[in-house]
Amino acid sequence: MHTDLVAALDIGGTKIAGALVDSDGGLLVRAQRPTPPQGSGEQVMAALHEVLDELAASPLWPGVRAVGIGSAGPVDAKAGTVSPVNIPGWRDFPLVRGVQERTGGLAATLVGDGVAMAAAEHWQGAARGRTGALCMVVSTGVGGGLVLGGELHPGPSGNAGHIGHISVDLDGDSCPCGGRGCVERIASGPNIARRALDLGWRPGPDGDASAAAVASAAAEGHPAAVASFERAARALAAGIAATATLVEVEIAVLGGGVAKAGEVLFAPLRRALTEYATLSFVRGLEVAPAQMGTDAGLIGAAAACRGLDCR
Amino acid sequence: MHTDLVAALDIGGTKIAGALVDSDGGLLVRAQRPTPPQGSGEQVMAALHEVLDELAASPLWPGVRAVGIGSAGPVDAKAGTVSPVNIPGWRDFPLVRGVQERTGGLAATLVGDGVAMAAAEHWQGAARGRTGALCMVVSTGVGGGLVLGGELHPGPSGNAGHIGHISVDLDGDSCPCGGRGCVERIASGPNIARRALDLGWRPGPDGDASAAAVASAAAEGHPAAVASFERAARALAAGIAATATLVEVEIAVLGGGVAKAGEVLFAPLRRALTEYATLSFVRGLEVAPAQMGTDAGLIGAAAACRGLDCR
Repeated sequence: MHTDLVAALDIGGTKIAGALVDSDGGLLVRAQRPTPPQGSGEQVMAALHEVLDELAASPLWPGVRAVGIGSAGPVDAKAGTVSPVNIPGWRDFPLVRGVQERTGGLAATLVGDGVAMAAAEHWQGAARGRTGALCMVVSTGVGGGLVLGGELHPGPSGNAGHIGHISVDLDGDSCPCGGRGCVERIASGPNIARRALDLGWRPGPDGDASAAAVASAAAEGHPAAVASFERAARALAAGIAATATLVEVEIAVLGGGVAKAGEVLFAPLRRALTEYATLSFVRGLEVAPAQMGTDAGLIGAAAACRGLDCR
Repeated sequence: MHTDLVAALDIGGTKIAGALVDSDGGLLVRAQRPTPPQGSGEQVMAALHEVLDELAASPLWPGVRAVGIGSAGPVDAKAGTVSPVNIPGWRDFPLVRGVQERTGGLAATLVGDGVAMAAAEHWQGAARGRTGALCMVVSTGVGGGLVLGGELHPGPSGNAGHIGHISVDLDGDSCPCGGRGCVERIASGPNIARRALDLGWRPGPDGDASAAAVASAAAEGHPAAVASFERAARALAAGIAATATLVEVEIAVLGGGVAKAGEVLFAPLRRALTEYATLSFVRGLEVAPAQMGTDAGLIGAAAACRGLDCR
């Protein structure tokens, strides 16, 4: 009988996933619902209740001792609330209280999804055993999380590692966050695709104008596609180098759809890092692809819970 | 009889200062020598030996239980070596071993000077009681140190908080560090003065073309001087906002000669922060002038020693 299970929740704009996770990171029971698009706060919470109830119906449920929640951000770990950009129905929504009410008052930990991803990579992925690591998701947005001193660093509000919204171009384009020249504004998938089109790349007969299509074109040497990825790589390099220079991390782990471009992204990224990571103590910075798959959010939510106050 | 003293060393390009520091941060005995300009490694070490010997001659010396060293960087806390940019005779110089040999094997802690400044401000200055703080020196260069989770974060090599050499302008001017668009390249005193001259400011009859003279002109409303400070403030704001977004700090403390410009710097800095610190969890970021004076390096070296492995 398992007595050391964590109920993990991974809450995003498209799906709400849940699982019972054992102390080895095994996902024993799963449940999932689509996030109601444009749903009210109550409708989204109802979907979450269905996920929790399905998990609670498992004969393993009595072995659950805590709930680990990773949510699209921003989150407020102190207040237990979330305001996910892509879940408009939830603004300062009391997520932790709602989860605790539905689970009979189990201890619950809340972190942002980038922090959860970092927790997963540090527990079982590419950042395993590292003292300092920046783990990033480069996708529709750019998010991240940090490991410092060998431990997850969620920050007081659970949002630390938000590398997508640091400015690497102080005079650059306006970002939807209100800032300017943010890493995400240059390096996210949609921005890679937009810039490739601006530079003259055109989609093939299937009309696919995604960053993945740009990556395929770049792999075949299309100059505009290559240039767009190189620009994204420079922005990522400046952001990664800034992080390493500020807090000393030894490795940057990149996951998410854009990172699937492989060497189309990683080769110019490694080159650009030599230009921005210049001080002696950051020169040895490694870059590696993420190792955790689509379950990273769930495994990371469980890992964050085990590493933080659920411990 | 004091039994809990730290011998503090503050090593820079112009002077080597030492003091016996008690558990309240009181400086009981002082010694100081000029740093031999262009001196060999041995000549600089000889000056340091004189400082240590003068401290050791004090009747209080038997109460010293450890040595705290803050040094111009980069430093390598793991190896115990330093390679200060402005002390050319020391490259990978085994400073900790040298200090221990001269002090009968006392425990010794080594951190960069920015980290020492942060330790001092956190112990007794503007960052007292804060969970997360970025403390900066804006002067001939731009340095810094971090407090995270209520504790000094020197990083594994003792260099964390190096905000002067993060890029906020990825296409910007080359920096002597090898990077591009670094905060220091835009916001240091010499760069403020250079830019004011480029923009048409001219020194007065005394010929003073320093950043302090630009600050006086800016206080009187000279447009080129104002513009140069505003540009420096934007770069500082982008760097400070990046730091808060990455690791969640609640306050940025600014010291050093350029910070003495007061509202000439702080007013545009606070304005620019609203443009770059945009996410919910960083919007409340405070900015404050440093409170520790010229002894910050010594008090911080002692504080870092007490907070780290000398503890």
